[in-house]
Amino acid sequence: MSDVATLPPIVTAIRESRRALARLLTRIENHAAASELAALYPFGGKAHLIGVTGAPGTGKSSLVNWMAKAYRAEGKTVSILAVDPTSPFSGGAVLGDRIRMRDLHGDSGVFIRSMATRGNLGGIARTTKDMIRALDAAGFDIVLIETVGAGQSEVEIASAAQTVIVVEAPGLGDDVQAIKAGILEIADILVVNKADNPGVESTLRALRAALDLGHRVERVMHHGKLMDVPAVPVIGEDSAWQTPILQTIATNGTGVSELLTKIAEHRAYLQESGVQRLRERASISAEIEERLRDLLLARLIERVGAAHVQATIERVLRREIDPNSAAQALLADSG
Amino acid sequence: MSDVATLPPIVTAIRESRRALARLLTRIENHAAASELAALYPFGGKAHLIGVTGAPGTGKSSLVNWMAKAYRAEGKTVSILAVDPTSPFSGGAVLGDRIRMRDLHGDSGVFIRSMATRGNLGGIARTTKDMIRALDAAGFDIVLIETVGAGQSEVEIASAAQTVIVVEAPGLGDDVQAIKAGILEIADILVVNKADNPGVESTLRALRAALDLGHRVERVMHHGKLMDVPAVPVIGEDSAWQTPILQTIATNGTGVSELLTKIAEHRAYLQESGVQRLRERASISAEIEERLRDLLLARLIERVGAAHVQATIERVLRREIDPNSAAQALLADSG
Repeated sequence: MSDVATLPPIVTAIRESRRALARLLTRIENHAAASELAALYPFGGKAHLIGVTGAPGTGKSSLVNWMAKAYRAEGKTVSILAVDPTSPFSGGAVLGDRIRMRDLHGDSGVFIRSMATRGNLGGIARTTKDMIRALDAAGFDIVLIETVGAGQSEVEIASAAQTVIVVEAPGLGDDVQAIKAGILEIADILVVNKADNPGVESTLRALRAALDLGHRVERVMHHGKLMDVPAVPVIGEDSAWQTPILQTIATNGTGVSELLTKIAEHRAYLQESGVQRLRERASISAEIEERLRDLLLARLIERVGAAHVQATIERVLRREIDPNSAAQALLADSG
Repeated sequence: MSDVATLPPIVTAIRESRRALARLLTRIENHAAASELAALYPFGGKAHLIGVTGAPGTGKSSLVNWMAKAYRAEGKTVSILAVDPTSPFSGGAVLGDRIRMRDLHGDSGVFIRSMATRGNLGGIARTTKDMIRALDAAGFDIVLIETVGAGQSEVEIASAAQTVIVVEAPGLGDDVQAIKAGILEIADILVVNKADNPGVESTLRALRAALDLGHRVERVMHHGKLMDVPAVPVIGEDSAWQTPILQTIATNGTGVSELLTKIAEHRAYLQESGVQRLRERASISAEIEERLRDLLLARLIERVGAAHVQATIERVLRREIDPNSAAQALLADSG
């Protein structure tokens, strides 16, 4: 598949030209790249996809920059996809961080792209996956997906990665509250950044306690109480991987090489345990299902007509029929 | 529609017998009541549906109890549906609160039901809506939907209510962090409970500041920083309703009658402004769409066969085709 002679033109283009890659990513953002995505998909699957998420103020962007530098020192090519699902209008924070990356500027082995999108969360997660596929097919060894931790969004976006790093930092208020619902469940590696700041011991203690209480199950700390929350589905995984807690200082790079070692160990674990296959299968199944739901609904509306759908909704609003019967009737009408 | 002679048997049964109502709610929880829901739907639409959400520790359950007592004093019948989406295994907290409701015990004008369910969030929200429809058709003047504020779940469940009350309390850690993403956007009325506790002024200040900064837009406080987050869709609403901030002491009922007055004002606003119709239309459209997506996917799998779907997923995993082309192919195969 990687024989150069058999490469489709789009793959050759994005491997040879950063400008062609940037243009393709823009077309993906505009949902105008279905044929290119179909052509390049067979030529991906080689990159290590690493998600990095954390709340604002954790220094996550600086850490990503140091990771990129460290991978470059190993001779690996790196792309960074910075997704800010919280900032549909400006994207200022992420772009601002990028401008600060003077050390990476001018290095042809590094490619950086920010995506500050509007649109629904599911749509952003899907676009992110498609952009990752383009970066993967473009031949980068490492794809770093950086996203702001602010709710459900980072869980969705991080699910596109193979190894998920959750970044915490001391001094962001109550240590226990900082461990937000749903975040620990997606972490393959926990990093306490700003490890030279006061309060690091208490952050570490809170994280260790939360991990002990149940990694990948539904228990999280919330307002200082133990609570059950809906967790990311566990897809037949064993518990052979113990989520490590590392310490870094991203202002000077302390701890970054240990982090890269741990990331490599996690990749080896994923591949040797078969967990990567399980995750890929679950992820691809979910994606195809979601795409099918959208396509099926669009086809139904086309077949029965938007006016008929509207008329049915009106009947429900007048309480002539209930929502379930209305859906069943539209299904029958669509043939 | 309310002529007794024309009532279907299920409506007569749930209006006359609490036991029949309880059994119907169990069948709804078990997804085995489609025909009853179809029969009773035309006889609903009269109750005021009031959502009450808040983090654990805010005293939200005590407040709901006081509200129920106050409505009873006005001669109104009340049902309470307590939904705990965070506790699929025990539901202990919600049930425990109910046991404490000695004042309501034995009053035939009050009906209480707890739902501590497992299952996905969308499924819980849909079951909640169906249970509300049964309580509505059973003739209660007031349906109180109480839910634990712990992430996205309360937003989904609260969306089934007409008037949403968000309960905060002083002393739950950092005041600013207590105003969680997505919560302010869904509040029609904010209540600071435990208003006799220390720190109430700072909680009020934080809430007022957050409201001033942009009610129903995407700005929220997060880790002490202003952030944009995806907001609940605003469906053509004007901004005539200014979210009030009330203070209550649920241990002795202080402020509850003012709360009921404000709830009545909100209902009048919803009806006179036409906002209620807009919200109902958006909610019913979304529900029918979601039901259709499920039905369409189930029909597709039945038509093309689960084995063919699996084989297609395998082809994507082998990178022979991309996920979008796979979905398109399955769509074409389903006719």
